[in-house]
Amino acid sequence: MNPSASLQPVLIDGQWRKSAASGSFQAINPRTRTPLDAVYPISTWTDCERALDAAARAFDTLRNLPVERIARFLEAYADRIEQRAAAIVELANLETALPVTPRLQEIELPRTTGQLRQAAAAAREGSWRLATIDTRANIRSYLAPIGPVAVFGPNNFPLAFGSVSGGDFAAAIAAGNPVIGKANSSHPGTTRLLAEEAQRAAEENDMPPGMVQLLYRLPHEEGERLVIDPRLAATGYTGSRQAGLRLKRAADVAGKPIFLEMSSINPVVLLPGALEERSAEIAAEFTTSCLMGTGQFCTNPGLVILLAGEAGERWIREVVDRFSQAPAGTLLSASVQESLLSAIKIIESAGGQRLTEPAGAPDDRVCCANTLLRISAGQFLAQPAALQTEAFGNASLLVVAANVEQLVRVMESLAGNLTGTIYSATGGQDDPAYDRLEPVLRRRVGRLINDKMPTGVAVSPAMNHGGPYPATGNSLFTAVGIPASLPRFSTLQCFDNVRPQRLPRWLRDKNPTGRTWRYVDRGWTQADVSR
Amino acid sequence: MNPSASLQPVLIDGQWRKSAASGSFQAINPRTRTPLDAVYPISTWTDCERALDAAARAFDTLRNLPVERIARFLEAYADRIEQRAAAIVELANLETALPVTPRLQEIELPRTTGQLRQAAAAAREGSWRLATIDTRANIRSYLAPIGPVAVFGPNNFPLAFGSVSGGDFAAAIAAGNPVIGKANSSHPGTTRLLAEEAQRAAEENDMPPGMVQLLYRLPHEEGERLVIDPRLAATGYTGSRQAGLRLKRAADVAGKPIFLEMSSINPVVLLPGALEERSAEIAAEFTTSCLMGTGQFCTNPGLVILLAGEAGERWIREVVDRFSQAPAGTLLSASVQESLLSAIKIIESAGGQRLTEPAGAPDDRVCCANTLLRISAGQFLAQPAALQTEAFGNASLLVVAANVEQLVRVMESLAGNLTGTIYSATGGQDDPAYDRLEPVLRRRVGRLINDKMPTGVAVSPAMNHGGPYPATGNSLFTAVGIPASLPRFSTLQCFDNVRPQRLPRWLRDKNPTGRTWRYVDRGWTQADVSR
Repeated sequence: MNPSASLQPVLIDGQWRKSAASGSFQAINPRTRTPLDAVYPISTWTDCERALDAAARAFDTLRNLPVERIARFLEAYADRIEQRAAAIVELANLETALPVTPRLQEIELPRTTGQLRQAAAAAREGSWRLATIDTRANIRSYLAPIGPVAVFGPNNFPLAFGSVSGGDFAAAIAAGNPVIGKANSSHPGTTRLLAEEAQRAAEENDMPPGMVQLLYRLPHEEGERLVIDPRLAATGYTGSRQAGLRLKRAADVAGKPIFLEMSSINPVVLLPGALEERSAEIAAEFTTSCLMGTGQFCTNPGLVILLAGEAGERWIREVVDRFSQAPAGTLLSASVQESLLSAIKIIESAGGQRLTEPAGAPDDRVCCANTLLRISAGQFLAQPAALQTEAFGNASLLVVAANVEQLVRVMESLAGNLTGTIYSATGGQDDPAYDRLEPVLRRRVGRLINDKMPTGVAVSPAMNHGGPYPATGNSLFTAVGIPASLPRFSTLQCFDNVRPQRLPRWLRDKNPTGRTWRYVDRGWTQADVSR
Repeated sequence: MNPSASLQPVLIDGQWRKSAASGSFQAINPRTRTPLDAVYPISTWTDCERALDAAARAFDTLRNLPVERIARFLEAYADRIEQRAAAIVELANLETALPVTPRLQEIELPRTTGQLRQAAAAAREGSWRLATIDTRANIRSYLAPIGPVAVFGPNNFPLAFGSVSGGDFAAAIAAGNPVIGKANSSHPGTTRLLAEEAQRAAEENDMPPGMVQLLYRLPHEEGERLVIDPRLAATGYTGSRQAGLRLKRAADVAGKPIFLEMSSINPVVLLPGALEERSAEIAAEFTTSCLMGTGQFCTNPGLVILLAGEAGERWIREVVDRFSQAPAGTLLSASVQESLLSAIKIIESAGGQRLTEPAGAPDDRVCCANTLLRISAGQFLAQPAALQTEAFGNASLLVVAANVEQLVRVMESLAGNLTGTIYSATGGQDDPAYDRLEPVLRRRVGRLINDKMPTGVAVSPAMNHGGPYPATGNSLFTAVGIPASLPRFSTLQCFDNVRPQRLPRWLRDKNPTGRTWRYVDRGWTQADVSR
């Protein structure tokens, strides 16, 4: 390997500087399987060292900056993303094959800037810090910034979950922490454009150097070394279960918090009354949800469970028709294609019967035929682990149960998922089955949905984009939703008998903003503390 | 081993029943080193199996019970503890040597019943569930019960942290979960009396069998098997770092939440102005704090850092006098004594100079001379890990720094602790040193204290009895304080487009109690949702 002068620089300590690289890589256009021009460094530990030192210094400085500055930085960054939107979505499209419209330009980019602005508002307002004041005992506590955060972004949302632009980034910054972003290797250029705008917005708003840093790629061992470094406080990760569990093992041994969103097959139950009532409508909704974005969503409906019988068979025929007629989208990368084909093979080996054309579509682009597989609940229950293999992409497994009790047993065999959906008749005839199923499904999923597909993940304060292990590392937290995603990057700090002028402003008698909600003497209030 | 008919029964599935034991043990009176009469079983996995099955059934039933019943159960249990107080404190005193008065009868028992009643109020009122409602998107979320919880209690608070009576127990039950208690082996009889009252209160209030279960002792491997069992949802543990980390490793690999409170030396910084101002007063406070309960508190001040100079030397002489004059209390058990003597030896080997009589007091009782050790900051910095060995008991290490900068370096070398304390002059002359120290200490401790010793842990909503690893497993959570300790035993559940009658009562339009605080459309309110 020859670290060449033409390698793209990394962003460390407020400067775009030459990487201490051990190798290089290029993004591949998934539509043509050809590399794009820019060459990116694979960083060595030297880059990590520098970034960690800068992040530690940035955190020391941040402590004395008004949160208003952080809020303005986030807003300025959102503005800058909008100003450079055309270039960002063009490059994201080249690197990921996600459509410019509507996906990147009209959905993901506005979602990204909306998240940054919501995060700014949360940073400014601070109610999410759960400031708690016991005036009698003079004990006060709140959720304080935790320290430098590493963010590992996924392949499927180059902007809205990007390592220096997405939900984890926005949450970590708004909570008062510097971020070291590790770009996803499938879209380094998009991440670079975003980091350029972040750095400019940071400079304009006098953020400390090292507030936002960017490395493009790290060997696995260096990633593990990064998450356990004493200078790093916490990690946010979105991606494959395998890589996530490697980081988790390292972080757990070191006692470091790590928040992982790893994998989910998002079971959807179709009760018979719903199919009798609106079969075609549900088939259309399912097809859209499963094939949108070529199925590359964390909440893609990868497992559908329905009862045997004519209504079910009719529905299956309808979705097979729709899947066969729909064009197969381009996948994000060759490795996504490889994982998808491998997952389909595992499901077929476990007895899944293919209902659509062979998956390995011969094509110049990176893709896979739209794929539906079918299996009986009895067979599913014989190999529940293999049949829960996540087929990330435009594929889904239909499980046909003989009766509601067998359907419940399938639910009982499920691992943790982000979402679980039940469609039922509006008239009430499915209610006994719903009541039987719901408790079993409820405890296995983060978000329980009625009568709509799981792929829409609203940025709502009430959203839970989380769920029981192994969908995530901890079912108490959500990766989407502001302010609910911010406490992950916080630590509980208590001040006992601390003199008034030494308290952080969130805990002083005077309400810090005049409108921050605080839990004072066992009630929520926006008032000052009167003593 | 001969599992004898005279073994005490375990509490499983609502019945006191014969244990499937692999061995037996007796509590030892630490004042006489003689075993007490009752013989307790060491359970095998068979007992765990039965308890797990019963806990799973109890959790299924709980789901449909009004929380009012749980609240009444906790209150009835508190009443029953008071009715049987004399017997409970008498046996606790025999098993632990903690004084009946004031400690057990006037402090710990009222603290225990107070916690149970506060937990009942929190269960009933429910604001801590952070019910969040987005009316526009019709997405609703709250902290739901997580499932059966195992509680491993510590040796030092037989009542207030007891596995079937203490803070973790109260939090887990109030959050809506059954508890499998693992008694601490040093006070099985006290735990039995408490469990008897818990079971009676549970029966009187129609709790499901298996709501409270009790095992006395488990081999390490079975403990690890318990915390990762699919039927168990989470674990609370208070005790030694070594045993805690074993459980943590097992739980982490299985992706199971575990909340650990493990060890802490609770640094106390005495700034020179404070010593000039009130040396004798601080010496008295320190001596009381360090020797109270024979120093067997999680928040015992085990490390004092002060500046070289006459004021410091005078203070040291004063505490040496006080330590030498105070009677040495009885320790909880022979293993506490062994650990304490071993920790003192480690500190001495690393250069700690003994200021008091030799530690190994020859005595029939389990005890150790009141021990003060001294070391220079320079020596401390040469072996910071060894010199942070927790000497659990009536011992403390005094670190003398040449100047404030060296004091800061000592702070920088500290691992995570529950508390950190700074004494400073009231007149302001220590403020520059305080400002220099505070950021360094702040991020290493859960509770920052001014001008008082750390041993008082008020049961306040604003309390943080937690801190950075390895003091605990996760610095976002507290083990003391209601309602703040309850979310640990919860899971975030979201309901997206779920029909109104299917929502849990905390998330319906009508406020469930008429006074529960909920976060509705970005503001806290006690009102019903109007749409």
